[in-house]
Amino acid sequence: MHRVTMYPSDGAPEGKMPKVKGLPAAQFTGTRPKLPDLFTRYSEQVQAEFCSILPNGSMELSDPFRYHLGWADESGERLTVPQGQGKALRSALCLFACQALDGDWMQAVPAATALELTHNFSLIHDDIQDGDTERRHRPTVWRLWGQPKALLVGDAMHAMAYQVALDLVERGVSESKALRSSRLLVESCLSMIKGQSLDLEFEDTLNIGLADYLEMIRLKTGALFTCSLEIGALLASDEAQHVQAFARYGNHLGRVFQIRDDVLGIWGNEEYTGKASGNDIRRRKKSFPIVLALEQARGADRDQLVAVYQKESLVEADVDRVLEVLDTVGAQDHAHDLITKEASLALRELENAPLSKWARSEAESLVDFLVSREY
Amino acid sequence: MHRVTMYPSDGAPEGKMPKVKGLPAAQFTGTRPKLPDLFTRYSEQVQAEFCSILPNGSMELSDPFRYHLGWADESGERLTVPQGQGKALRSALCLFACQALDGDWMQAVPAATALELTHNFSLIHDDIQDGDTERRHRPTVWRLWGQPKALLVGDAMHAMAYQVALDLVERGVSESKALRSSRLLVESCLSMIKGQSLDLEFEDTLNIGLADYLEMIRLKTGALFTCSLEIGALLASDEAQHVQAFARYGNHLGRVFQIRDDVLGIWGNEEYTGKASGNDIRRRKKSFPIVLALEQARGADRDQLVAVYQKESLVEADVDRVLEVLDTVGAQDHAHDLITKEASLALRELENAPLSKWARSEAESLVDFLVSREY
Repeated sequence: MHRVTMYPSDGAPEGKMPKVKGLPAAQFTGTRPKLPDLFTRYSEQVQAEFCSILPNGSMELSDPFRYHLGWADESGERLTVPQGQGKALRSALCLFACQALDGDWMQAVPAATALELTHNFSLIHDDIQDGDTERRHRPTVWRLWGQPKALLVGDAMHAMAYQVALDLVERGVSESKALRSSRLLVESCLSMIKGQSLDLEFEDTLNIGLADYLEMIRLKTGALFTCSLEIGALLASDEAQHVQAFARYGNHLGRVFQIRDDVLGIWGNEEYTGKASGNDIRRRKKSFPIVLALEQARGADRDQLVAVYQKESLVEADVDRVLEVLDTVGAQDHAHDLITKEASLALRELENAPLSKWARSEAESLVDFLVSREY
Repeated sequence: MHRVTMYPSDGAPEGKMPKVKGLPAAQFTGTRPKLPDLFTRYSEQVQAEFCSILPNGSMELSDPFRYHLGWADESGERLTVPQGQGKALRSALCLFACQALDGDWMQAVPAATALELTHNFSLIHDDIQDGDTERRHRPTVWRLWGQPKALLVGDAMHAMAYQVALDLVERGVSESKALRSSRLLVESCLSMIKGQSLDLEFEDTLNIGLADYLEMIRLKTGALFTCSLEIGALLASDEAQHVQAFARYGNHLGRVFQIRDDVLGIWGNEEYTGKASGNDIRRRKKSFPIVLALEQARGADRDQLVAVYQKESLVEADVDRVLEVLDTVGAQDHAHDLITKEASLALRELENAPLSKWARSEAESLVDFLVSREY
């Protein structure tokens, strides 16, 4: 099945095929885990696409737009070293899938950019909804420009996602595939919004099981991961089975990513995550460890957990008590088990895909990174 | 130039070609002006399309979605008589343009629905931004479901606009025209957002001229009007000159609509508009009459206008004083002049379009309605 492909000239790592490693405890290890090369390989082209779609100075919303994406400070001044940028994970996944299936990944750059815009518009609106004043160590857009403006910046970014996706045709993608890509994009965006809505509804109830949680993250996080890999694969291949294999790989990666995110939201190191340890408990988020504890804690443990989650406001002793309950039910170990299981399932999906050695190796490095990332 | 077309079987009005009439004073006349037939001719199909894209009961956001569109009450119960529905003007414009150019307007229904969704998502977000608690005589979505949920409902409606637009292909529209329609839709949406952003910026300054105002409404209102007519025409015709004629007709209609809206926002009858007379003054909106007065008022008149617009909160005497200044500069007459000028320009754009008698007559009835509407 394996085709021989030219090793990409821009630095994808050669080497042995790593296995999924166990989940290291989310604690400060002294070294910041290195991002796999695929996170940096495509970033220049995605940045160039961002710049090309944003009319210079002619858009009233461009300052907060550039600020949120990390290219400018709050007064609109261009930063020579970007600040507060995310990992641009979704665009990297899309372009990796395209390249891994021997496609011309440059063709897929508009779709990758659209995915990044979709993710980022949701963050801007999410910060408004949650009243969050900081993201990635910087004040949020609404905090600086006010809610009405931030709402419009998010709306503009949302619309621009669909706009840039239509540029696929200009890169030589067929009209059929461009339409199909737009449809996948909008459907995954709707799933994401539905997941966010479920997440919001979870705030008002303690009656959530793990199945509810998993469905919520499949929508909120998994849909855009799945879509990223599916579009990338679609633009490289006409083989539905390979495209679907990448889509399913993405779905499992979404679970790995989100459950690891939930672990970091409680036990993560502030220096890496930008959020205080125990943060998700303070915000009473119904993340994986909490939903698990709500299902598995018994007696006084469960009563106290419920009591804390019903209080108007928390003190640090409440946070400590929740951490104890999480320890009692072995929440970190359970998260570990599920993450490694999903990581294995992810890799299994690609077993029959026609990947060359470098691509398979990278698909595995990516899983390893998502399993053990500290940020 | 005129082709003979079959008169539509579903009730477009036969009859004489009305001329643009002068602007009646926006005061209670005892009769609610009748909507031209084109507002009702297409509504059943657009409603059916709405229903088909909204998964029954499977979407957490569907209650507020249905509520906002007037099909359900706040508990999600289906209303036998819709409440609080708008005129669905943009969808009617789109389908009229298609039918007027002898196209199969049923093909254009997904685009018409997309335009309506785009307009309505912007209303939901606009109500959040402005903190408005009522729209069309009913509580706003954020007022009933809270801001976080309302934000998501708007986001979902925004995404669904692009989703339903992609259904054009399923109706037999070519992939090229479907892509072109999607591009027009997203570009007009971005213009609308940019216009809303300008409108927001106008709140903080009194240094706005009529040119600024006209540019703002070209974006905020005109872009979606233009797009509605352009897509409808595009789906019926391959003649760029005819498509562009409809687009320009739409641009002028947008001006007519918005300036009339501004007149109604100050001198309108509450029973028709659902808003108290003088409402836009109380909200210190920089609508056409105010911008005009800021340009043309002199001496004490201007000073007092500026003083009122700089106050923290207004009393009714302030509103009365502003109304006096508007009278002094003849703001209603100026609005009248501009509206009738734009109405004439609108009709002139269609002079060389190949319209049959009924279509030309309706294009004129539509202008007449927009010029003189009371709601």
